[in-house]
Amino acid sequence: MSFNTFGRMLRFTTWGESHGPGLGVVIDGCPPGLRLREQDIQPFLDARKPGQSKFTTQRREADQVQILSGVFEDGKGQQVTTGTPIHLMIANTDQRSKDYSQIAKSYRPGHADYAYDAKYGIRDYRGGGRSSARETAARVAAGAVARLIIPEVSLISYVCELGGDGIERDAINREEIARNPFFCPDSWAARRWEEKVEAARKSGSSLGAVVECVAEGVPAGWGAPVYAKLDSELASAMMSINAAKGIEIGDGFAAARLTGEQNADEMRPGDDGKPVFASNHAGGTAGGISTGQPVVCRVAFKPTSSILTPVKSINSDGEATEVVTKGRHDPCVGIRGTPVVEAMMALVLADAKLMHRAQCG
Amino acid sequence: MSFNTFGRMLRFTTWGESHGPGLGVVIDGCPPGLRLREQDIQPFLDARKPGQSKFTTQRREADQVQILSGVFEDGKGQQVTTGTPIHLMIANTDQRSKDYSQIAKSYRPGHADYAYDAKYGIRDYRGGGRSSARETAARVAAGAVARLIIPEVSLISYVCELGGDGIERDAINREEIARNPFFCPDSWAARRWEEKVEAARKSGSSLGAVVECVAEGVPAGWGAPVYAKLDSELASAMMSINAAKGIEIGDGFAAARLTGEQNADEMRPGDDGKPVFASNHAGGTAGGISTGQPVVCRVAFKPTSSILTPVKSINSDGEATEVVTKGRHDPCVGIRGTPVVEAMMALVLADAKLMHRAQCG
Amino acid sequence: MSFNTFGRMLRFTTWGESHGPGLGVVIDGCPPGLRLREQDIQPFLDARKPGQSKFTTQRREADQVQILSGVFEDGKGQQVTTGTPIHLMIANTDQRSKDYSQIAKSYRPGHADYAYDAKYGIRDYRGGGRSSARETAARVAAGAVARLIIPEVSLISYVCELGGDGIERDAINREEIARNPFFCPDSWAARRWEEKVEAARKSGSSLGAVVECVAEGVPAGWGAPVYAKLDSELASAMMSINAAKGIEIGDGFAAARLTGEQNADEMRPGDDGKPVFASNHAGGTAGGISTGQPVVCRVAFKPTSSILTPVKSINSDGEATEVVTKGRHDPCVGIRGTPVVEAMMALVLADAKLMHRAQCG
Amino acid sequence: MSFNTFGRMLRFTTWGESHGPGLGVVIDGCPPGLRLREQDIQPFLDARKPGQSKFTTQRREADQVQILSGVFEDGKGQQVTTGTPIHLMIANTDQRSKDYSQIAKSYRPGHADYAYDAKYGIRDYRGGGRSSARETAARVAAGAVARLIIPEVSLISYVCELGGDGIERDAINREEIARNPFFCPDSWAARRWEEKVEAARKSGSSLGAVVECVAEGVPAGWGAPVYAKLDSELASAMMSINAAKGIEIGDGFAAARLTGEQNADEMRPGDDGKPVFASNHAGGTAGGISTGQPVVCRVAFKPTSSILTPVKSINSDGEATEVVTKGRHDPCVGIRGTPVVEAMMALVLADAKLMHRAQCG
Repeated sequence: MSFNTFGRMLRFTTWGESHGPGLGVVIDGCPPGLRLREQDIQPFLDARKPGQSKFTTQRREADQVQILSGVFEDGKGQQVTTGTPIHLMIANTDQRSKDYSQIAKSYRPGHADYAYDAKYGIRDYRGGGRSSARETAARVAAGAVARLIIPEVSLISYVCELGGDGIERDAINREEIARNPFFCPDSWAARRWEEKVEAARKSGSSLGAVVECVAEGVPAGWGAPVYAKLDSELASAMMSINAAKGIEIGDGFAAARLTGEQNADEMRPGDDGKPVFASNHAGGTAGGISTGQPVVCRVAFKPTSSILTPVKSINSDGEATEVVTKGRHDPCVGIRGTPVVEAMMALVLADAKLMHRAQCG
Repeated sequence: MSFNTFGRMLRFTTWGESHGPGLGVVIDGCPPGLRLREQDIQPFLDARKPGQSKFTTQRREADQVQILSGVFEDGKGQQVTTGTPIHLMIANTDQRSKDYSQIAKSYRPGHADYAYDAKYGIRDYRGGGRSSARETAARVAAGAVARLIIPEVSLISYVCELGGDGIERDAINREEIARNPFFCPDSWAARRWEEKVEAARKSGSSLGAVVECVAEGVPAGWGAPVYAKLDSELASAMMSINAAKGIEIGDGFAAARLTGEQNADEMRPGDDGKPVFASNHAGGTAGGISTGQPVVCRVAFKPTSSILTPVKSINSDGEATEVVTKGRHDPCVGIRGTPVVEAMMALVLADAKLMHRAQCG
Repeated sequence: MSFNTFGRMLRFTTWGESHGPGLGVVIDGCPPGLRLREQDIQPFLDARKPGQSKFTTQRREADQVQILSGVFEDGKGQQVTTGTPIHLMIANTDQRSKDYSQIAKSYRPGHADYAYDAKYGIRDYRGGGRSSARETAARVAAGAVARLIIPEVSLISYVCELGGDGIERDAINREEIARNPFFCPDSWAARRWEEKVEAARKSGSSLGAVVECVAEGVPAGWGAPVYAKLDSELASAMMSINAAKGIEIGDGFAAARLTGEQNADEMRPGDDGKPVFASNHAGGTAGGISTGQPVVCRVAFKPTSSILTPVKSINSDGEATEVVTKGRHDPCVGIRGTPVVEAMMALVLADAKLMHRAQCG
Repeated sequence: MSFNTFGRMLRFTTWGESHGPGLGVVIDGCPPGLRLREQDIQPFLDARKPGQSKFTTQRREADQVQILSGVFEDGKGQQVTTGTPIHLMIANTDQRSKDYSQIAKSYRPGHADYAYDAKYGIRDYRGGGRSSARETAARVAAGAVARLIIPEVSLISYVCELGGDGIERDAINREEIARNPFFCPDSWAARRWEEKVEAARKSGSSLGAVVECVAEGVPAGWGAPVYAKLDSELASAMMSINAAKGIEIGDGFAAARLTGEQNADEMRPGDDGKPVFASNHAGGTAGGISTGQPVVCRVAFKPTSSILTPVKSINSDGEATEVVTKGRHDPCVGIRGTPVVEAMMALVLADAKLMHRAQCG
């Protein structure tokens, strides 16, 4: 996609830094007539919001969204989208004024510090500036709008592996996801993770995670060959999330270890003329186009590089130094990545729906 | 990206079907003055070409490239790019005229047959039409042009896992890659794979594979936040390849199982003022921008769904049927995916170089 | 738009030079199921084809189009579009091999010679290379496909002014357009123009022209604020045509001399609930969106700079020289611009229709 | 371009309605390290600001710009761009709360009212909503940033015709432009216009105008064939401005009345090896690429459709009605279009510079 814009028919553009006045997103191409109020967006932001348990960063942000354009009363007492650009803004409220002189000159290994300086010759070092995961709040807000475009789709997402410890597939209970601070659908795993994350938090270490997202209700026909394959769009979307280092659709890397027979998703006639599939190794796409099966993807999040253990680095003068990242951070950034993955899925699918409608009516 | 076009500054558009008169690619935005002759492109096409060993499809295509526009003599006896669109065309020569009546009505599980019909209401069923991996020849040709734009980068790619059997990292010998029909850098693994693939071929089965690609010489600063991250662009590029179902950068999914300490790529001052990294878990990017380390990605290819074992399916009338895919096919499509992955890496990096030059001079 | 690609949902990419092997266009995003054969495209190319009267260039090109991808039999005996990229190719057949040594080094005033060299450091000087109006054959071919997407629209275009001599609005007779070699709808003007063009041709001079295009049947609602206004898209499309130097919608520059009262297009209720407009000063758009009135634009073509009169110039060594453009050329390039203007109108409207369908259903 | 985004490398996206909380623009792709403070932008907004004389709308807006992202201290005491998206916001302060019930249901002829309703089924009718020329404040703010990218270019723009009364070319005095409320470079014309506009204002009528913009210092080589011609980009940019109905480059429509000899811009060797042109009929471009001559364009603005004279129209129930547009409006909207034209020129040229740098280094 393009710098700070994502999408083709449904396009969103984000702006803002971690410690600036705020951040926002302009959503363009949204169909008119969809009911949209701030309270329709807020719950999704609240799910991503930091500071809600001891297992996430202690930065406290209200993450209150404001709709600044693109909606109007529809004459029937509802506030709806007008088809013009929707600007959503979220103020930053808990930017701590602290001494950044140390971090301003040192490059934290694994952070974008060095890369930004190498590219631009300048960076906003306060809280990571533009490279901060705070940008993902704008995506989550945009995702709430995207959902309105695809009412036929229901989305679910959860952490399926944390610190190398995976959930039991048989133990998945969707209602469990909201009951623990890890978006974990397996209550036993959630208990194990609590210990893991607590230990990491206390020792100033960090953990990685894998997030799975399932979209049910996607009709056959969304996505397009060759460079707009649904797989390609999802991969682009997910790998743009901070700390994401891998993405797979359906069985993904595991499919590379199957035989053609094992990997075949056999079809049988369904009652409505549509096929009934015996399995979903493909994750809901074939040739990059949705098949009517659930679209399934998994995203790998690396452990955040903000750790208390000193690591060797250099500073902007090219001198050797050691870096310790103090202050507020997520011991497992993948956890809060869950609503972001879901938002990106919604945005990709909504775009695909509009693109399909454009070409195929 | 957009339907049949990929890239932003360096943009290429492919056309063609498996059994039409041919296929081609229009490359737009290429810098002027780069020496380009057909023989500069042909070796890359030859590497991907089918029918070169018994381990790939027996379809025989010369895959002879023609340059139809965008080059001219430079007055010094060289043929160079002019900055105008380069059209490369490859004729199809071995489209067997056979009876497609069976396949025309039946949907092969795992193929794009059903999805195309669901989307478009029509498909060119001869050899998979537009969904055929034959389209990747156009990418490989485009990749040869992209390489000219990034002479500072050297690319290497190989199969690192086949049918679940991985190479030994210590046994990697780059010169080995060209010595076996599997693009395998580990001579012992190559021997094991020979048996594996032969068995699959004989039984009409198929195998998956993982391809790794390493780009050395990429300077720090390519790629851009937020939606044009190098990771995001590579993911989009790789997942648009036929049969690709997963992509990871650096340690990828394995990084999700590391702690922050384990995953940190420590830096030390180098002789030239640039950092020397102690490790490369990140795969050459931070914040989506290249760090000067080798850019490393891995792509998972599913086993091709063309197998001799009958699988249950439906036909276009919605009736139950069984499908056997006879005829020529690759027992492990990931093998020939190797030059395609390398081409896509070249195309993404060349685009990133031009984009960086545009913004940062 | 982008280098050699135009359009957003319906996108076409052209390639080729005046004296290379040929030229072509890849059309992407075309809806499936539209009947398309070469003979559906050829008449439009024939209308633009050179060498048909003594009033156009004597270069003789068959301009025979070939469809190389994107169509397939629909099972009912028709060849239709499949939704995949359509590649149309036109071979060059009358590239005279002549001595270009003079032109290779000299910059013809008014031609793109100097600008191309200044930009790229190289140019294909044979017949103008990429800057030749021969590229417009590809647009006309693409336009024929675009027409299939907008069957509700009927297009008409004609030269309304030639060498400063305008038609009489009252004398417009649409059937006259095909009866003279000037696409002139006013039989009296056609006779006057015959003398004018003949005189210019004989003296090796050249003339400018203004082409008007009217699209009837465009429903209200196509086009979109703010940067995708129909006016903006049409302006971009028309000004990309060789020799075009001005574009206006509706009354255009004349509207700048009206008062608000004179310029108002009053509305009255129509029988079908849609408004009946008392006038069409606006040329069919308001706020950049179609109103249901005919969409009207006019394009100004400068006189071609290929003239027999010697003009002062410089060569690539920066030395003073004089240039005479011998050989085949159009005495009034605006004449053959007429089918090109019509094609671009079709392409813009088809794109606008698909975009509107995407957003508004 | 694309809905609410314009540009390719330098891209800006605007949002906001006339009577919402405010409006803004996100500028993406800006090079890093350019000094940018609010006071660098404000003067351009002030030039466009309404309510500065009795000849423009009496709506009073401070049009105070806020920079909300994309800048940071450079360590040398300057605030500079960082290469990340720059969000500029302007609050609306003088949205009169009035009764919109009349306008909410009636379609004002010449306004976008009917077209928006036909497209979207809904519109924000307060002050024209998104179709209001208030959106152009965002462009002017973006233009101020674009100027920083092209310090080699100096821009000048002025009204060259008002109500059909043109300036004398010989009487152009650039210093005069800022001395009258009409951006008029001819002091005699300015006096005549004062009477004209005053009469229109008093009678509740409105007038059209033509704005000319000249960019000096543009080096040869910007712009690109075929669909990214500078002419095409400028046409797209200018015709996206509210009330613009025509655009021409160089002699434009007048060139269509010249012969090839008259229109030829002869070249002579200059002292620096670059050509010296004897004339500039072409307006600074050839083949869509800049030649080093001043880039010249003219934009025709229709008279605003907001007039006191009752005009026949229909309402949203399809009934006949009469409309009088009371309230604040510009008697000649072309006047305040002048800074907007200049901003769009800056934005197109800055984009072209970055694109050229990308491809040609």
